[in-house]
Amino acid sequence: MKKNKGRVTLPSQQNFLKETKELMERWGADALRDSDGTKLDDELKRLDAAIYTTYFVARSHNEFAEQHPEEMQQLYLMSKYNTAADKELTISFLDGYFEEQVEADYIHDPKSWWEVIDRTTGKVVDPEFWEVKREENCLVITNAVPWHEYTVSFLSYMKWDPTQMYNHITNNWGNKPHEIPFDIRQPHSNQFIKEYLQKWLKENPDTDVVRFTTFFYHFTLIFNSLGKEKFVDWFGYGASVSVAALEAFAKEKGYRLRPEDIVDQGYYNSTFRTPSKAYLDYMDFIQRFVVSEIRELVDAVHGHDKEAMMFLGDNWIGAEPYGEYFRETGLDAVVGSVGDGTTLRMIADIPHVKYTEGRFLPYFFPDTFYEGNDPVVEAEENWLTARRALLRKPLDRIGYGGYLSLACKFPAFVDYVEKVTDEFRCIHDTIHHVKPYTGLKVAVLNAWGKLRTWQTHMVAHGKYYQQTYSYQGILEALSGSAVDVIFLSFDDVKESGIPEGVDVLINAGDAGTAFSGGENWLDESLTSKIREWVYKGGGLIGIGEPSACHHQGRFFQLADILGVDKELGFSLSTNKYFTESVHAHFITENMTAYDFGESKDNIYALKEDTDILKYSNGSVHLSSSPYGEGRGVYIAGLPYSHENTDLLIRALFYAANKESEYKVWHASNPHCEVHAYPDIKKYAIVNNSKETQVTLVYDGTGASCEVTLGPGELKWEDSANEG
Amino acid sequence: MKKNKGRVTLPSQQNFLKETKELMERWGADALRDSDGTKLDDELKRLDAAIYTTYFVARSHNEFAEQHPEEMQQLYLMSKYNTAADKELTISFLDGYFEEQVEADYIHDPKSWWEVIDRTTGKVVDPEFWEVKREENCLVITNAVPWHEYTVSFLSYMKWDPTQMYNHITNNWGNKPHEIPFDIRQPHSNQFIKEYLQKWLKENPDTDVVRFTTFFYHFTLIFNSLGKEKFVDWFGYGASVSVAALEAFAKEKGYRLRPEDIVDQGYYNSTFRTPSKAYLDYMDFIQRFVVSEIRELVDAVHGHDKEAMMFLGDNWIGAEPYGEYFRETGLDAVVGSVGDGTTLRMIADIPHVKYTEGRFLPYFFPDTFYEGNDPVVEAEENWLTARRALLRKPLDRIGYGGYLSLACKFPAFVDYVEKVTDEFRCIHDTIHHVKPYTGLKVAVLNAWGKLRTWQTHMVAHGKYYQQTYSYQGILEALSGSAVDVIFLSFDDVKESGIPEGVDVLINAGDAGTAFSGGENWLDESLTSKIREWVYKGGGLIGIGEPSACHHQGRFFQLADILGVDKELGFSLSTNKYFTESVHAHFITENMTAYDFGESKDNIYALKEDTDILKYSNGSVHLSSSPYGEGRGVYIAGLPYSHENTDLLIRALFYAANKESEYKVWHASNPHCEVHAYPDIKKYAIVNNSKETQVTLVYDGTGASCEVTLGPGELKWEDSANEG
Ligand SMILES: [Mg+2]
Ligand SMILES: [Mg+2]
Ligand SMILES: [Mg+2]
Repeated sequence: MKKNKGRVTLPSQQNFLKETKELMERWGADALRDSDGTKLDDELKRLDAAIYTTYFVARSHNEFAEQHPEEMQQLYLMSKYNTAADKELTISFLDGYFEEQVEADYIHDPKSWWEVIDRTTGKVVDPEFWEVKREENCLVITNAVPWHEYTVSFLSYMKWDPTQMYNHITNNWGNKPHEIPFDIRQPHSNQFIKEYLQKWLKENPDTDVVRFTTFFYHFTLIFNSLGKEKFVDWFGYGASVSVAALEAFAKEKGYRLRPEDIVDQGYYNSTFRTPSKAYLDYMDFIQRFVVSEIRELVDAVHGHDKEAMMFLGDNWIGAEPYGEYFRETGLDAVVGSVGDGTTLRMIADIPHVKYTEGRFLPYFFPDTFYEGNDPVVEAEENWLTARRALLRKPLDRIGYGGYLSLACKFPAFVDYVEKVTDEFRCIHDTIHHVKPYTGLKVAVLNAWGKLRTWQTHMVAHGKYYQQTYSYQGILEALSGSAVDVIFLSFDDVKESGIPEGVDVLINAGDAGTAFSGGENWLDESLTSKIREWVYKGGGLIGIGEPSACHHQGRFFQLADILGVDKELGFSLSTNKYFTESVHAHFITENMTAYDFGESKDNIYALKEDTDILKYSNGSVHLSSSPYGEGRGVYIAGLPYSHENTDLLIRALFYAANKESEYKVWHASNPHCEVHAYPDIKKYAIVNNSKETQVTLVYDGTGASCEVTLGPGELKWEDSANEG
Repeated sequence: MKKNKGRVTLPSQQNFLKETKELMERWGADALRDSDGTKLDDELKRLDAAIYTTYFVARSHNEFAEQHPEEMQQLYLMSKYNTAADKELTISFLDGYFEEQVEADYIHDPKSWWEVIDRTTGKVVDPEFWEVKREENCLVITNAVPWHEYTVSFLSYMKWDPTQMYNHITNNWGNKPHEIPFDIRQPHSNQFIKEYLQKWLKENPDTDVVRFTTFFYHFTLIFNSLGKEKFVDWFGYGASVSVAALEAFAKEKGYRLRPEDIVDQGYYNSTFRTPSKAYLDYMDFIQRFVVSEIRELVDAVHGHDKEAMMFLGDNWIGAEPYGEYFRETGLDAVVGSVGDGTTLRMIADIPHVKYTEGRFLPYFFPDTFYEGNDPVVEAEENWLTARRALLRKPLDRIGYGGYLSLACKFPAFVDYVEKVTDEFRCIHDTIHHVKPYTGLKVAVLNAWGKLRTWQTHMVAHGKYYQQTYSYQGILEALSGSAVDVIFLSFDDVKESGIPEGVDVLINAGDAGTAFSGGENWLDESLTSKIREWVYKGGGLIGIGEPSACHHQGRFFQLADILGVDKELGFSLSTNKYFTESVHAHFITENMTAYDFGESKDNIYALKEDTDILKYSNGSVHLSSSPYGEGRGVYIAGLPYSHENTDLLIRALFYAANKESEYKVWHASNPHCEVHAYPDIKKYAIVNNSKETQVTLVYDGTGASCEVTLGPGELKWEDSANEG
């Protein structure tokens, strides 16, 4: 395909004109941005490129914030557990928190806004039985029950923006001022941000795109007394709380929230918690407010003929792109970091914006760009992982971040990115307007549904949790596979059943979490709707502890569909007869080794007609089961790999009763995939690995031929028919 | 020590006089018994030996039973789960059961005694909406909610004694009649057993000891439609149910039981289920009845100057030796099978009887006694495992079972048993009247307490459960260790606290089971009493999922004492800081390798002062934690081994804050132990292994010396002081 230009954003920096021009040329960049710690000088701004300028709304304005300490961001925090040894118990509620980040809110009366809970009984202690000693930052309970445990939920002020705090501490910024986050729900702050933006827009005529980083409320990020991370939830609404918000909530929703609705036993409604009604209401309340305030800022930006772009992260709380109100923001674009196929799809699938942009890795920072290291390794890993998702739904733009001057010093890296940017534009230009062939429609079912599209089991960037990787593989596999994916909540199913066209439901997660579903499974309208749907031909894939909630003799509430249940120790007296694996099965046709990640044990087959596909350590790890006209499949865990992607896709076709369609468009080698675009009579064959691969390719006509692909190669072919 | 005679029971058989006399002489036997399938002839009965005769009370009398089919034993059974696809649902409730074992009870009105349950909601279906079709053994629900699951709990008759059924099927007994079990609560049966016993006692003047095998109600043992085991609970009260019993229960306890109180979601109140109030009431009700009926039989036996001995097994339900009413049976003796140290202590510790007898392994059956096999291997294994328990609390007698003629053919076995019987008598005669030295008092805490003394995590003989061996090691270790052991229930602690003198509490088991405790841990009186007790100096050892019940932000309700909790996936957002193991610790002083069996993962340290002793796979597997003056210890699992016995004992001394007393009487080699008897100024050094061992022996004075012990050797020594 012909080499073309554009759709690429570069970071630049002062006194770097010549090299910037050169790299713009080689990488075909048509936009320049500043980064944290870099500014673009005027010469750069005059280049033939769109100028993105980072804009902070609710921090980075200490001259204002210092004048209104009462408008600082707030947080509800929970103290440690404290055991009473006597009737009087003193709790140093700030113990374990970072004094440079938080301080107690003594402006509002603790007796009205704080909550002391007996965690042994779960009962709230009447405020008449406790007193706050402000000088010592402690609270004294006077009628404690000895040997009960108590916690204090207290309102605090957050006096340091968490992202700047993280960068400040990590990079040893010393005396650099701490940026104070302020709450735009408060009157002075609200007025300030709007006036300031107007002024700024006037003062920055060269800016084409205002890159909001981001808006108002930072995800929950709390440090400990040693200045290390203590609690982080990329989805957390913790820092959107304030007395004003709680008052407004009560007015809007007709009931008052308790501190416990936010503190949630110290779990702070993390994304893994099955959300309560109160928390969902609170999210809705914040989203409505955030979206309407964003709209005002976007209108101002548009008033100056600039575009408004949102960075997906940092202060993004309430502005979720898959939220109900997101369309009303009027935003032009969203940009986010692409770590893998899942994050690429999370950005690329965002509705209601004119374009999306993905920032690829590596970031041009000294931790990767140092002498002796080869940044191409990370770049290639990133590109090959993300590209398969791009072939399903392309981003409109890609970009990089950091110091361009660092990247320049690595010619092989510059070469590689040239290749990547060309390949990206080729993919985009070829397929951005066409729907790729999909063999199936899959619905991922959990407590969050559409709101957390491509975000199930996702955690803060770069964090590894032993408890999540065995589930994250599911979405990563799906992100670049030839299946349509939608996200359904339990409430969606209860209200409207399974949408027309869905072939397979996936429920995956640890028991009790939002992703498995916990007590949602006690709702008969949920289980009945799914049973009927599968019975009439649908497919259900359960991974880990699907539909798990111990009730009426079953742990998996859909054990009848899945054909397996988990032994909790209550039914040891009941013999488990079925332990033999079947000799051959569609799902495992090409499997030689299995990797269920953390896996699950104590899973047993309930029925003779459960086909056990993998039995080891006294437990079923992979099985299928008929259920009326439909099928259930159980998988003990699915960390991401090319082989597990194959396994999942085979399981999907099997569950959907569509095995015969599995090879319509298909590459037999697990490292290779085929993406077909019948509308334009083209298909792409990709090698997702760094090694040369040979694969049979099925071209939609039933015919197949052997193809050899070099490391990471992408081959475009014209197809004879329309698939 | 001088060789003496007695305390040994031999099985014998017809036409085996000479060999019997010879073996009686060599093994010092003073009693002879018949076995299943053998009878003693008159010549044998005239030998200088007590004669034990097996006696069946409520089976083995088909001439009576066949005349009273309405008095057969009953069972509540639950059907399979059946999903309604329509408003009408037909359930073949006998599906999966063994038609030779059970049949539906159509004598009593199903509408009064059966229960149809919607297992999706847990609600009972009004009997007006279902009908039983007797001819087809099915039940039709007429107002089913489509896609709900239903079960039928139905009363059945059990027409084949489960033990005879098992032997009959296993040994292919062909046409041999099926022994019908009858319920002595019924009028004819009750009259029959008493009259028959009187007659029998008169007709068997040579019998010295009536060996009841056993009394009235068999533990729950249900077969499937293929004649294979389907459900077995050695502790189960399933086969004690009847309409008469349920009516009497209502009168005695003032409320009616539901079928579900017995069926229990299909778990049938297995010993792993945290017992409900209703089930505890029912057990109490059955025990009172059983004990009063036993008393009548025992009185009759005594009236003929014979002794009454109970076999601990088969129809032992309601006659639990550690039950509240057992003393009132008037029984002279209990005999049971000794598989290991735990079962030995279970028998040897039985209160209120004149003597206890353990039947050792191997049983003289062709499965062990065949040409080419060496029965000494099993005998030695059995003896070395049990002997350490015997040194803590000797049985009064030992014995063997099976065909003596088989044993005779193995001279090496005859020699080995001669050694065993001599060693047994020596141990008994030396220590049966003295209390061994104990360094600590340990209380095992669970839902069953004293009733299931030495029976925690115990299952039907010879069964292996992957889910239990990691806990069974605890009691096996304790059974032969120099510690006092008592068994406490949660109710005991709630009512009376921890008894005086207890050094350490152990709570061990999987979450939700009777042994961990499930919702008992939500009772603040339980947690408060334990917290206070540990805080003031007690020790708590938690193994597996101790005190586990998710509530108020904690899974382990005693996490504050244990210093660890389990990550369920709700608190992933909270950083876990403490992952470093300590370099040296009293508990792990001699440990080189660890075996936690099935172990637990996702255990994390809550506090900085938790000492992590073993951290692997991202999880704490062994730790200790201070708590006031006391200590908590966490262990992920403890399968039995000599090394794990050492680990547990060290953990106990540590938890008790008595490390300095650990070596008072002690053998440094984990395969060796010292048992001291200060009252008689003796101590025994034993080698529990089959290899020669060298060990340092600490002799109570603080001094130690090196001792070499041959394979399995037991050395008696005189001690200088009284320890
Ligand atoms: Mg492939
Ligand atoms: Mg005699
Ligand atoms: Mg030792």
